[in-house]
Amino acid sequence: MEVAVAMTSTNPLSNPPTGLTTGPPAPPEAGRARRTFDARLLERLARFAGAAPIEFVMADRVRALTPGAQQRGGAVATVRLRDRATLLGILTDPAIGFGDAYADGRAEVEGDLVAFIEAMYRAVPDSGAGRGFPPRSVRWLERPRRNTLKAARDNIWHHYDIGNAFYALWLGSTMAYTCAYYPTPATSLDAAQVAKFDHVCRKLWLQPGETVIEAGCGWGGLALHMARHYGVTVRAFNISREQLAFARERARAEGLDAQVEFIEDDYRNIAGRCDAFVSVGMLEHVGIANYAELGGVIARCLGPRGRGLVHSIGRNRPARLHPWIEKRIFPGAQPPSLGEFMQILEPHDLSVLDVENLRLHYARTLMDWKALYDAAEPRVQAMFDARFVRMWRLYLAGSIAGFTTGSLQLFQVLFAPRHNNDLPQTRAHLYDRG
Amino acid sequence: MEVAVAMTSTNPLSNPPTGLTTGPPAPPEAGRARRTFDARLLERLARFAGAAPIEFVMADRVRALTPGAQQRGGAVATVRLRDRATLLGILTDPAIGFGDAYADGRAEVEGDLVAFIEAMYRAVPDSGAGRGFPPRSVRWLERPRRNTLKAARDNIWHHYDIGNAFYALWLGSTMAYTCAYYPTPATSLDAAQVAKFDHVCRKLWLQPGETVIEAGCGWGGLALHMARHYGVTVRAFNISREQLAFARERARAEGLDAQVEFIEDDYRNIAGRCDAFVSVGMLEHVGIANYAELGGVIARCLGPRGRGLVHSIGRNRPARLHPWIEKRIFPGAQPPSLGEFMQILEPHDLSVLDVENLRLHYARTLMDWKALYDAAEPRVQAMFDARFVRMWRLYLAGSIAGFTTGSLQLFQVLFAPRHNNDLPQTRAHLYDRG
Repeated sequence: MEVAVAMTSTNPLSNPPTGLTTGPPAPPEAGRARRTFDARLLERLARFAGAAPIEFVMADRVRALTPGAQQRGGAVATVRLRDRATLLGILTDPAIGFGDAYADGRAEVEGDLVAFIEAMYRAVPDSGAGRGFPPRSVRWLERPRRNTLKAARDNIWHHYDIGNAFYALWLGSTMAYTCAYYPTPATSLDAAQVAKFDHVCRKLWLQPGETVIEAGCGWGGLALHMARHYGVTVRAFNISREQLAFARERARAEGLDAQVEFIEDDYRNIAGRCDAFVSVGMLEHVGIANYAELGGVIARCLGPRGRGLVHSIGRNRPARLHPWIEKRIFPGAQPPSLGEFMQILEPHDLSVLDVENLRLHYARTLMDWKALYDAAEPRVQAMFDARFVRMWRLYLAGSIAGFTTGSLQLFQVLFAPRHNNDLPQTRAHLYDRG
Repeated sequence: MEVAVAMTSTNPLSNPPTGLTTGPPAPPEAGRARRTFDARLLERLARFAGAAPIEFVMADRVRALTPGAQQRGGAVATVRLRDRATLLGILTDPAIGFGDAYADGRAEVEGDLVAFIEAMYRAVPDSGAGRGFPPRSVRWLERPRRNTLKAARDNIWHHYDIGNAFYALWLGSTMAYTCAYYPTPATSLDAAQVAKFDHVCRKLWLQPGETVIEAGCGWGGLALHMARHYGVTVRAFNISREQLAFARERARAEGLDAQVEFIEDDYRNIAGRCDAFVSVGMLEHVGIANYAELGGVIARCLGPRGRGLVHSIGRNRPARLHPWIEKRIFPGAQPPSLGEFMQILEPHDLSVLDVENLRLHYARTLMDWKALYDAAEPRVQAMFDARFVRMWRLYLAGSIAGFTTGSLQLFQVLFAPRHNNDLPQTRAHLYDRG
């Protein structure tokens, strides 16, 4: 590892030389010019990262400290880029370029990966929203894929049909792949997922004998919990075949297959009535253009005494998902701002009863998942390859950073048809223990 | 009181005769023609009221049952209109026309006033939103007054500077003129107002020694409660002089004038920093066009660990306030939908932490106020006049109906700057008793 040389403003070849350091000793002319060109490029990247205290090193030859690292007198992480092509790729499109370089091993992060991304998110609040060198007019063309019935299936299969055995390595025993709820910091992942199921059921004020429709049921954990512990009948919809196969097997094994029906269909095709409509972690995949239609489905399902709950990743204001996450991990995904979320409910005169932001619970959930994932990396590599391992590591670390820095939110929204007055008068019942 | 004669479809002069009944016996020709003309007008009003089970009587001569009353075989209330001019006024502009006629005593309601308005709101969901006979293009001109600094003062004086003695008759000992919070149905009005203060303070996670800015402080109840029970310093803003005089006197009497400063100024002129920003029942008067500016004021005030709470009447979707309420009671008022509410927060990257809808708590609060108001009517009449008594009775009854039917909502919205992670992890602390 090179020794960092303090920035010097007397270097005539770097102007301004902010954060630029070069290795000793004085090089021959050709190497020096090349190094200077690379140094200027790297310096540009360091300026882009601004207040984030990061050290960038390229090809073990050139290094640059961000203004934040200079001010702080040190970096939280060192990012090593293999070569100039990698550096240029990142400069051209920081979000996609860095993600792909990290996945390929052309970019490496020394130090805590989450702390590095957190620092970037804090310093460049829109670093995940496509801010980079190409003009906005070009980026506008890169909007998320449209979620037609066909595209929705392709998008869902891309992510959720990777294989149940893979997810089983790190989701914990509930196989719940959504934000858990930690009543105390000591709560374990599995207990927190069960606590989330109960939190949702209590919010929905479920009564024995009632009917529930679930849209986007994952591996079936919530549906089965509702049936077992709240005495309701559930029709649960999903378009991921891998998840449905797992959920149906689970229902049979638990003797709940008469009470819970798992249906392979799109939320748009849901028919029939129910007392409660619930959707946990599907809305991210719906696309804002489809919200009024989703609201129509919900309003049609709910009787006059109905209740609904939609749980989704969200944003403080309308913004694209991080483009690398959208491109490589969640095609078609688009977490809404709360204002955008209201496009589901307002056209149908549905009353918002309760919104809870569980952002820091999702950060904690992801930390728990990442710990399991990190431990399972050799098995993930055996299932897939090194690139896949690194891609998913970056996705999990980036998601933690998204939630800890407030780039991402997690909204649980409870609502009811306008005339439903048959509801708990306070939320105290959510917190009764015993 | 006349005896209702059953509708008959054999009357050749009424075509269609839906709900029309005429008094006995057969009248002379001239009177009969006049009665038939009036009957048709009254029938038109009955059709407008549709499913609401109401009986309308004009000049003690002509009566009509709504389709809802016919179907149900009876009415929840009888509305007596003094004369044809009154009937025409209501037909031309139902919302304003009925309110003014009721205030003048030209319209009288026999039966429960709240039940009558509830029935109307349920049957004609937009009956309060300017639906009537004039075309929308004309109604568009009747939008709420703009809330410039000057207009805001005029609007606030119109309502809040009527006189502290008047409000003291029916608001209870706290003088809180906003939705209370009833932990149990047995909670009294005064206890529920104090419980609301505590609910707000707990949501804001107030710590001793912190600073609070309150925008729109009414008679000062919340500001003084925060100072006394949470050990904070409060700067409380208001543009109602009557309220400020009362609040300052109260602070002196309670020995809290060093800890609470009451400032006569508009929210737009608030400067300085604080740990918590709170506004209870002011937003209704701000106007949606000013939301981004209000959000700017809040974002400027809050430090990185700040919290904010805005409590406001709201709607399920964008809609005007009932035009009569807006014209006679609350000029310039405009309760937002939650989507509109987000125009305060989204431009400033403020994170919504918690939204609670207290709609039915406001219905209960208004019932408690109305019971006190009804008992104090002779004193109100001595202070003002009969018209004023009836106008405010209608406003209170209409507001109860607005909340019980879901025409109105009550949103408490808690939020924080994006990077604030120093927050309670669950809401359980709101419900700790003891």
